[in-house]
Amino acid sequence: MKVVFIGAGNVATHLAQALQGQGYDICQVYSRTDASAKTLAALLHTAYTSDIAAIDREADIYIYSVSDSVLPEIAGKLGVPGALHIHTSGSTDMNVFQGYADYYGVLYPLQTFSKNKSVDFSVIPLLCEANNDFAKERLLAMASCLSESIYPCDSESRRKLHLSAVFVCNFVNHLYEVGAELAGDSGLPVEVLYPLIQETADKIKSLSPYEAQTGPAVRNDRNIIDKHLAMLEGKRNLSGLYEMLSEDIFSVHRITSNNKK
Amino acid sequence: MKVVFIGAGNVATHLAQALQGQGYDICQVYSRTDASAKTLAALLHTAYTSDIAAIDREADIYIYSVSDSVLPEIAGKLGVPGALHIHTSGSTDMNVFQGYADYYGVLYPLQTFSKNKSVDFSVIPLLCEANNDFAKERLLAMASCLSESIYPCDSESRRKLHLSAVFVCNFVNHLYEVGAELAGDSGLPVEVLYPLIQETADKIKSLSPYEAQTGPAVRNDRNIIDKHLAMLEGKRNLSGLYEMLSEDIFSVHRITSNNKK
Repeated sequence: MKVVFIGAGNVATHLAQALQGQGYDICQVYSRTDASAKTLAALLHTAYTSDIAAIDREADIYIYSVSDSVLPEIAGKLGVPGALHIHTSGSTDMNVFQGYADYYGVLYPLQTFSKNKSVDFSVIPLLCEANNDFAKERLLAMASCLSESIYPCDSESRRKLHLSAVFVCNFVNHLYEVGAELAGDSGLPVEVLYPLIQETADKIKSLSPYEAQTGPAVRNDRNIIDKHLAMLEGKRNLSGLYEMLSEDIFSVHRITSNNKK
Repeated sequence: MKVVFIGAGNVATHLAQALQGQGYDICQVYSRTDASAKTLAALLHTAYTSDIAAIDREADIYIYSVSDSVLPEIAGKLGVPGALHIHTSGSTDMNVFQGYADYYGVLYPLQTFSKNKSVDFSVIPLLCEANNDFAKERLLAMASCLSESIYPCDSESRRKLHLSAVFVCNFVNHLYEVGAELAGDSGLPVEVLYPLIQETADKIKSLSPYEAQTGPAVRNDRNIIDKHLAMLEGKRNLSGLYEMLSEDIFSVHRITSNNKK
């Protein structure tokens, strides 16, 4: 199977290497910028281009890992309606390919990718959608080479999971950043937070996040909350963030407690 | 060593069992409510009371795992100035014992505890502070039985780490709750989020949270952000929370990018 990668970002970098490891022939990498196309192509020992007109029109599969805003434009210019066209975006509808291709679909890996951090693809949930049986068969053949965790998922459900991922990944990572910033003031190494971070992530596998919740906000302990707000003064809008998160915690737990009565 | 536990909450439950496992004689549990004193005492096969006047005055060590607001009152009423008095609070000053005891200190386990989830004490960072050499010697002897990760930490640094823990644990757990709520709408099982949650927690051990940040906020991708805000309408104040977190992510990354120029 000859595959062209459209895009050379974090997702493309990891997905292309994983597919190549499974015997797929990644014959070309396209990226808007020559340098990033070249970097990924070098990793894969393959060809590259930054010119849409020069994209190889003989491939079996085109995988689009580009930003949502440029996806429709490239799909429109590419042609090759007889090939399989797949994008990897959480937030773009499968029908972005409608009118441009006969066989198309989505393979959305529900994971965070950074270029300098390797990942084990076999445990990544792959959310798959295809426009017809032929596209579905090829897409699932590809997905099942990569991962043991494959879910059929339509565009609307995928959008919901993408939004969920922003909360449990991007926003959580930002709270790690804020936590490290605050711990930095203490003189202790940031590593002192790792067991707590790990246990918080582990805990929800045996307790629901609702049952696992601890701390001043769930008890609405104003004594501690007010001390914390005072400590956050002058640090961007962290006191506003602290208050909004505490209010949401308390409202969820209070609402549910009342319902339980 | 005879130990009395003042408090029977999550921290007391785990700490008392860990100490008993190391050969400490937990001779009594005190709690304001008889039922919770009884529950922990039953786990430990020991005595209990809910009457401050009936607390055993012959113990060597008193460990206070109670809410910050009642700690000073109990410390004041207990007496026994010759014993070692230890509290486990992140946000209360060590000097809460000043005037009531000669030997005192703090053992703050930087971890989240839920009653129905066991923890491995040996990897929990224990932040220790003592008022003199004798107290320090006994406190460190106890701490080193429990964990391989012991840090000296004064009251001010401990307060900072406690605040940091609210962000990386309580607030993170709440984002897991919100994420599960949003994923629930998708029809896929909540377990589909676990690999992402795990990788997000793992990643910061090899990349800083700053380097690890991905997603629409760090790129200020208004196209996706606006779609997400629309999807959150009518769900408590989650759109406000989404916006505040996105703004803080963007401001941290933009500030740093400008500084780098």
